[in-house]
Amino acid sequence: MDTIAAISTPYGIGGIAVIRVSGEAAIGIAEGLTGRALTRQVHYCSIANLDDVVVTTYHAPHSFTGEDVVEISCHGSLYIQQELLRRLTDAGCRLAKGGEFTQRAFLNGKMDLTQAEAVADLIQAQTQAEKDLALSQLRGGISTELSALRDRLLQFTSLIELELDFADHEELEFADRGELRDLAQTIETTISRLVTSFKTGNAIKNGVAVAIVGATNAGKSTLLNALLGDDRAIVSDIAGTTRDTIEDTLVLNGVLFRIIDTAGIRETKDSIEAMGIARSQQAIERAAIVLHVQDITQPTEPLTIADKTVIEVYNKADLVESSSASRMSSLSLTLSAKSGDVSALREMLVEAAGDLHPEGTVISSVRHYEALCRALEAIGRVQQGLADGVSGEFLSMDLQDCLNALGEITGQITSQEVLNNIFSKFCIGK
Amino acid sequence: MDTIAAISTPYGIGGIAVIRVSGEAAIGIAEGLTGRALTRQVHYCSIANLDDVVVTTYHAPHSFTGEDVVEISCHGSLYIQQELLRRLTDAGCRLAKGGEFTQRAFLNGKMDLTQAEAVADLIQAQTQAEKDLALSQLRGGISTELSALRDRLLQFTSLIELELDFADHEELEFADRGELRDLAQTIETTISRLVTSFKTGNAIKNGVAVAIVGATNAGKSTLLNALLGDDRAIVSDIAGTTRDTIEDTLVLNGVLFRIIDTAGIRETKDSIEAMGIARSQQAIERAAIVLHVQDITQPTEPLTIADKTVIEVYNKADLVESSSASRMSSLSLTLSAKSGDVSALREMLVEAAGDLHPEGTVISSVRHYEALCRALEAIGRVQQGLADGVSGEFLSMDLQDCLNALGEITGQITSQEVLNNIFSKFCIGK
Repeated sequence: MDTIAAISTPYGIGGIAVIRVSGEAAIGIAEGLTGRALTRQVHYCSIANLDDVVVTTYHAPHSFTGEDVVEISCHGSLYIQQELLRRLTDAGCRLAKGGEFTQRAFLNGKMDLTQAEAVADLIQAQTQAEKDLALSQLRGGISTELSALRDRLLQFTSLIELELDFADHEELEFADRGELRDLAQTIETTISRLVTSFKTGNAIKNGVAVAIVGATNAGKSTLLNALLGDDRAIVSDIAGTTRDTIEDTLVLNGVLFRIIDTAGIRETKDSIEAMGIARSQQAIERAAIVLHVQDITQPTEPLTIADKTVIEVYNKADLVESSSASRMSSLSLTLSAKSGDVSALREMLVEAAGDLHPEGTVISSVRHYEALCRALEAIGRVQQGLADGVSGEFLSMDLQDCLNALGEITGQITSQEVLNNIFSKFCIGK
Repeated sequence: MDTIAAISTPYGIGGIAVIRVSGEAAIGIAEGLTGRALTRQVHYCSIANLDDVVVTTYHAPHSFTGEDVVEISCHGSLYIQQELLRRLTDAGCRLAKGGEFTQRAFLNGKMDLTQAEAVADLIQAQTQAEKDLALSQLRGGISTELSALRDRLLQFTSLIELELDFADHEELEFADRGELRDLAQTIETTISRLVTSFKTGNAIKNGVAVAIVGATNAGKSTLLNALLGDDRAIVSDIAGTTRDTIEDTLVLNGVLFRIIDTAGIRETKDSIEAMGIARSQQAIERAAIVLHVQDITQPTEPLTIADKTVIEVYNKADLVESSSASRMSSLSLTLSAKSGDVSALREMLVEAAGDLHPEGTVISSVRHYEALCRALEAIGRVQQGLADGVSGEFLSMDLQDCLNALGEITGQITSQEVLNNIFSKFCIGK
């Protein structure tokens, strides 16, 4: 394969930057650039008329990509980074596409597809929970869980297909139906658990969506600001892009919450009512948790919304002499957003989000979820077929469907299109 | 010294990030974190419950700082970067201050002060000329030029001071006055050349300031946009902060130009006249080159400003049948900014900026410039003293002044205050 190069460190000016080169010509090109024989693993070299750098070499297959890899640490000037990259392409490198290093690691058998996907998730991780999820996947969490089952299933499928070759002998059963029934049951249990875990995984990865709704003067904006507190600036720094949306993010107990900020919507005089209602409805639809903010001096009916956790927040407790910040039930409380003390609400949010530090493997990828759902359907048909005593031919088809779905997850079965789609989401340089 | 740690790569999310640790405990702390004996230079390690990383060790004195150094390459998630840094500080590291790694390199004799300053310049380099300047300084350009002269001067000073010890013997001259005269002449020539080079160095480092002035409807904005063209976006990306000012930057022929954008000033109806004039005057004062934009159909008098290069731009050539884009003289031309073809003006700007790819050492630091001016003054007094035949006592004082000024540049003579001032301008992690 051709030799690829990219800046692997974040974009910008810094003390140092690292340019990664991978492919057959990597070491030769680096030797040309530095005028040195790169015999050791780490060399301090001059690049003529450009910079003094540290070059680290990794010989195939003992590298991230499984190919010869060179990493060049240069001074972190944008000019130097770009000029160094230009010289590398002049010397025969091609600019790497997003995720191309990881794609090569996958193609060279250094990792399976779930691990490759975990690399991208790990890089994007904003919270501990997200990082834990990605790291467990990188270290083979899902693969380990699925591969052994898939191998056993593959064995049964082979035996059943062997039976088909001896179709004349109807009595012949190479594959023990009782054992197959047990295996299908195990697979169904495992996959069901993983499919269920997606809700948690998705909440960890994309954040738990929280909508703040309520009447115009109930104090939504004040509550939002109190909730975000000092965390606002920190989280905004990290997310970087949330400023473009009407969402704010908040990390509580290592879990990311996305606060859908209906309070922040700029309402024009023209159609306050209409806009307000429409926006609130949209916000509620996208949310897992709804904060229904009420003015405690003018309380309205509690809100009930199917499939959503609604927390009733009786605000402006400071206006009522007898009231203070306190929980009224597991899902309602009084507080004074103005006072800034919303710790009870923060705790309630963490509880409502559920246990997002689960033991065991959790999936967070829509791709994995969809494949697992297909595998679950197929194994259900296998179980039904076994119960109905259908012929090996039909069993075999359903088993193949299940095997394919599981194989797609780890990348044992995959298409170029799927690969391109996965790796195009990576940042350049990884 | 205590062990310091910082993220050395640019701030943000990327494929990888590098955290640098320097000090006596560096390797021990890294071994504790990875649970591995770091016996080789490069290790691929797991950090429990955080990330899989590559750890590179450098043993004192063979490292950037001259101390034991560990560089940890982790996945470039902000969470992982910050958590890794937190674990390092938990393990006994202190967060490094801006430039502290380079400061230690200076204190441990790995580089002199001009080289340390060059590291900061190299990191900030936006253009080839700027990078060339910093790299030449990093590789010892100024030091080499000054050190030998300073050593010879030091020898003479010692001899003259020795004469003072034998003050009774008025005839005694250990220091040959003729040789000293020659040396003083050589030093004066060298320093004069360096002092003169500051104008060039400063233009390379801070950009050549160009003001666009002219009547309201002369087409200043259109000319500005045509000049910036596609480069605008690229350069804005790089500079990052120019958006806050009314300046745009433009790189032509490897040289940075700062266009002081009087066209971009938002003029209110209230006092257009007053504001416009005041702003234009400020812009002209700060500029080295002034573009005087005129409507070719309503030409006014050419502008003459002391100490500034004025280029007369007769715009709107498209309105005059007989006119086309062309040079009228070395400092005036007709063009149509609307057509977008301003290549002749770009060439003229490059010429007007002068030769900014000079041979030989060029200084760009105000600190160096000021010290050199003081050295030049002192050596002038030495020369005068030699001509007047003053006593060794007076010569000695002036020689000491010159030696001190030269010693400040390379850091042989320096104060903690000066050091703090220099290194506080560095980014964290270098």
